[in-house]
Amino acid sequence: MRIAVDGMGGDYAPHNIVVGTVSALRENPRISRLYLVGDPARLQAELDRLQFRDSRLEIVPASEVIAMDDPPVQSVRRKPDSSMCRAIDLVKKRDADAVVSAGNTGALLTAAHLKLRTLDGVDRPGLAAVLPAPHNEFVLMDCGANLEPHPTNLVQYGIMGSLYARQILHYPNPRVAVLSIGSEDMKGNELTLEAHRLLKATGLNFVGNIDGHDLFDNVADVIVTDAFVGNAVLKACESTARVVARWLKQELKRNPVRMLGGLLARGAFRDLRRKVDPDEHGGAVLLGVNGVCIKAHGASSPLAVKNAIRLATEFVEGQFNEHIVEEMRRFHEKIGHNQLAQSPL
Amino acid sequence: MRIAVDGMGGDYAPHNIVVGTVSALRENPRISRLYLVGDPARLQAELDRLQFRDSRLEIVPASEVIAMDDPPVQSVRRKPDSSMCRAIDLVKKRDADAVVSAGNTGALLTAAHLKLRTLDGVDRPGLAAVLPAPHNEFVLMDCGANLEPHPTNLVQYGIMGSLYARQILHYPNPRVAVLSIGSEDMKGNELTLEAHRLLKATGLNFVGNIDGHDLFDNVADVIVTDAFVGNAVLKACESTARVVARWLKQELKRNPVRMLGGLLARGAFRDLRRKVDPDEHGGAVLLGVNGVCIKAHGASSPLAVKNAIRLATEFVEGQFNEHIVEEMRRFHEKIGHNQLAQSPL
Repeated sequence: MRIAVDGMGGDYAPHNIVVGTVSALRENPRISRLYLVGDPARLQAELDRLQFRDSRLEIVPASEVIAMDDPPVQSVRRKPDSSMCRAIDLVKKRDADAVVSAGNTGALLTAAHLKLRTLDGVDRPGLAAVLPAPHNEFVLMDCGANLEPHPTNLVQYGIMGSLYARQILHYPNPRVAVLSIGSEDMKGNELTLEAHRLLKATGLNFVGNIDGHDLFDNVADVIVTDAFVGNAVLKACESTARVVARWLKQELKRNPVRMLGGLLARGAFRDLRRKVDPDEHGGAVLLGVNGVCIKAHGASSPLAVKNAIRLATEFVEGQFNEHIVEEMRRFHEKIGHNQLAQSPL
Repeated sequence: MRIAVDGMGGDYAPHNIVVGTVSALRENPRISRLYLVGDPARLQAELDRLQFRDSRLEIVPASEVIAMDDPPVQSVRRKPDSSMCRAIDLVKKRDADAVVSAGNTGALLTAAHLKLRTLDGVDRPGLAAVLPAPHNEFVLMDCGANLEPHPTNLVQYGIMGSLYARQILHYPNPRVAVLSIGSEDMKGNELTLEAHRLLKATGLNFVGNIDGHDLFDNVADVIVTDAFVGNAVLKACESTARVVARWLKQELKRNPVRMLGGLLARGAFRDLRRKVDPDEHGGAVLLGVNGVCIKAHGASSPLAVKNAIRLATEFVEGQFNEHIVEEMRRFHEKIGHNQLAQSPL
């Protein structure tokens, strides 16, 4: 299994990227080759600091870097020799099975879509994130790839997200829902109402609409939505969890009794933090492109990078994309048959 | 000041509504009349249980109830004698200055829009909620009224939300932002990009785009968005805060040391809960209709009902709607002048 890592993408690149990559290589003997893409001198310096040598690791030079605030489409066009583009090129040329980047999200989505193209049967790729909840984890999709989607895109997210929940999260029969403004069937906008109607006919375990209040209540394992809503909701959840923790910390410092209480309870805070820490979850996956593409978040720690690489290996080993193509073929057949069945001829 | 309260709307009506209304009357001598609308027998029974008598309170009979899961538009049409419709009618006839309901949100938005109409200069009303953060509170608007908005609607939300932040939250120069998928100017969908462009020309203290990660970081006091996103984000924030609290409680029960810690720190949990409790915030306000309309949340406690009534009195006393009309007039003049200035004639 061969992984390409964008060595220069992310707020703490190349340091955190290299440290995470080294951990991944140490832990995972099934990685046969790891391409670390970027400025060779800087990458080698980080490796030297770790005194890491491994014949599986190969530095692939790239002279440019797409910055976190570069305009996505233009930067992909203007920086063909960027670490991100070169890493994706390795997948495109089939030298690597997967690409991992903590860099500019928009640029990664653009470059992966342009260079890798979509899988057979998939119209538009979507970004899938996994969120933790007390009684399940759930896939939220699309979190940022496709800003003006058609209802059929949401149906395809349902199919791909369902496969994600089945194969990677190990739910035997994942429940798929549409994120709307209420759980009743008739609630929503044009996009969600039509997606709802279409999802009923897919054969997926479709449980209907849910709203933002239901997210963590174990009512669905896959939640489909358009990129704008998914992105806003994902970030709102992350920032709420963060602000609650920060605020509680302030409150715990107000007097010595509370401070002692906080000290005694620190194991609880630590365990909860670990459960909700996005770094533990390995990043978001761009589903539907012809190649495995993992987006680690911009501020990724070495742990996040390591877990993003682990996630990439799970998608490659499970032949996830082959299964998507198969599911899509079945879906299009079913829809075709339905259309025939409904035809007056 | 005269307030109409929908006595039968909400998950715990009429009990919580009546208890909250009674507290509001006890605390606020400036309420000169309070119309409690609904089933007279049930409302009177609740009042008798509280042994409450007050000449300012008048029960207004209504024979129907719009249920929480009734289809909004149809129920408003088919249940003209519902407590909700009758309460709004009192504002329409100018017998009351404000209406408060914890009932079906969609029905309330529909009925208030239909019956009260919009204020001069406002094209579409929007639902404004206030969210707490460590260093400020902020207005999120629209949280559910207008599902297919035009960019100019978002501009008007900016103007109305800014007035809300100035007059009710007492920010002298509220910062207005557009919720998008990144803080850079060029990020967003067609709606937000155009709203961004228009907001720059309003003379508001417009600070540009923010994304879901920035919500609680004190970068904006008014955040405008379309109803679908606003609704999803508001509910996602509420459910995240709830799930973090629930989860932490579980973790604190795992062993005696943690339990003791939790006990000692309970003041911190209580203070934080009070700060983030939606019941403390009095509900959402439908801005832009000709009358004050407060939506308390469905599961409102008596405290939430009391605070929703308090919020209604603040809007009435501050002559909020007169100020909206004035701001809108000024805005349309300014835009008119700009158009003249740009005209080749």
